[in-house]
Amino acid sequence: MATKAELTRARLLNGAMASFAEHGFHGTGTRHIAAAAGMSPAAVYVHYSSKEELLYEITRAGHRELLTIVEAAAADDDADAPSRLKTLVCDFVVYHAQHRESASVVNYELTKLTPEHLAEVVGLRHGIDAAIRRVLTDGVRDGVFHIGDIAMTTTAVASLAVDVSRWFRDGRSRSPHEVGDYFASLALRMVGAPQDPN
Amino acid sequence: MATKAELTRARLLNGAMASFAEHGFHGTGTRHIAAAAGMSPAAVYVHYSSKEELLYEITRAGHRELLTIVEAAAADDDADAPSRLKTLVCDFVVYHAQHRESASVVNYELTKLTPEHLAEVVGLRHGIDAAIRRVLTDGVRDGVFHIGDIAMTTTAVASLAVDVSRWFRDGRSRSPHEVGDYFASLALRMVGAPQDPN
Repeated sequence: MATKAELTRARLLNGAMASFAEHGFHGTGTRHIAAAAGMSPAAVYVHYSSKEELLYEITRAGHRELLTIVEAAAADDDADAPSRLKTLVCDFVVYHAQHRESASVVNYELTKLTPEHLAEVVGLRHGIDAAIRRVLTDGVRDGVFHIGDIAMTTTAVASLAVDVSRWFRDGRSRSPHEVGDYFASLALRMVGAPQDPN
Repeated sequence: MATKAELTRARLLNGAMASFAEHGFHGTGTRHIAAAAGMSPAAVYVHYSSKEELLYEITRAGHRELLTIVEAAAADDDADAPSRLKTLVCDFVVYHAQHRESASVVNYELTKLTPEHLAEVVGLRHGIDAAIRRVLTDGVRDGVFHIGDIAMTTTAVASLAVDVSRWFRDGRSRSPHEVGDYFASLALRMVGAPQDPN
């Protein structure tokens, strides 16, 4: 069971995430975070030594979730490369659509981290790229993908998903899963996998 | 010939762009802009009434340039749809790689504009989408593109290019034109155009 301190920290992280998403890291003050968390400004620094520490925890947690999502899809040994790529892209896109605010903070505020924290997060990003690359490489080995440049195709697949947090809005015509399925079919085309016209 | 006031305004815009790219809109103060422009802080507000006005001019100018680029490719009536899409994506990507800093400001700081200014910029973005959509629609009409959802494919094509300003760094292994050419071939695959394995 979560302790009271853990629950308080979780509330503060949510408040900080919402504030960073609305005002940007630099535009966020202690008072924004406290108000969003329903706490007093003094309480913030009881639990966190700095605004950067809050950004670091949010960014690390978000990247760990993303890494878990893409690694689960990449490591499914019972499925062939096209099925794994489809699941990976769909889940990656759905996450960015459903967690639009936090994903924006996680992807676009990185440069405000300290060098040590940034290095750790860059390591997690390399893990995400490695999971995508593993699926692409397996598909080429199996003769079902035809890819000229695996590194650039990895980046392009990630771009389709990451950019969702910039443009997606709830209540527009497509649901997160509809975007995920469609972008998965585009990714399969990008790697030269046989596809029905979509 | 540019007047002295015009040159001063151009220096201020460049200084503001570099400051917004480094510190974010909210993290940028008058002193950052003045220092980046090599001017006194007092000079900034002789030429601009607010920081938002500088962001607006930068964002509007950037979107107008992008609109010119994609419309030129889309409107080339001597070329077929695949050639036009190739040129459009390549030029769009190269712009985002070569103007990484300003493109980041232009794409990711939009929410800091006043509602009136945002509405104007959103209008320019609709023009950019319309140019992409025109090429995709022409390709479908001519039977060379096979696209299930033109609106979502338009967004995906734009994503490939816009996201370049997030990840591209000078001096890495690929030049802007290499990325542009490769991403253009991926876009042609996304629309179901016949493509040699790339």
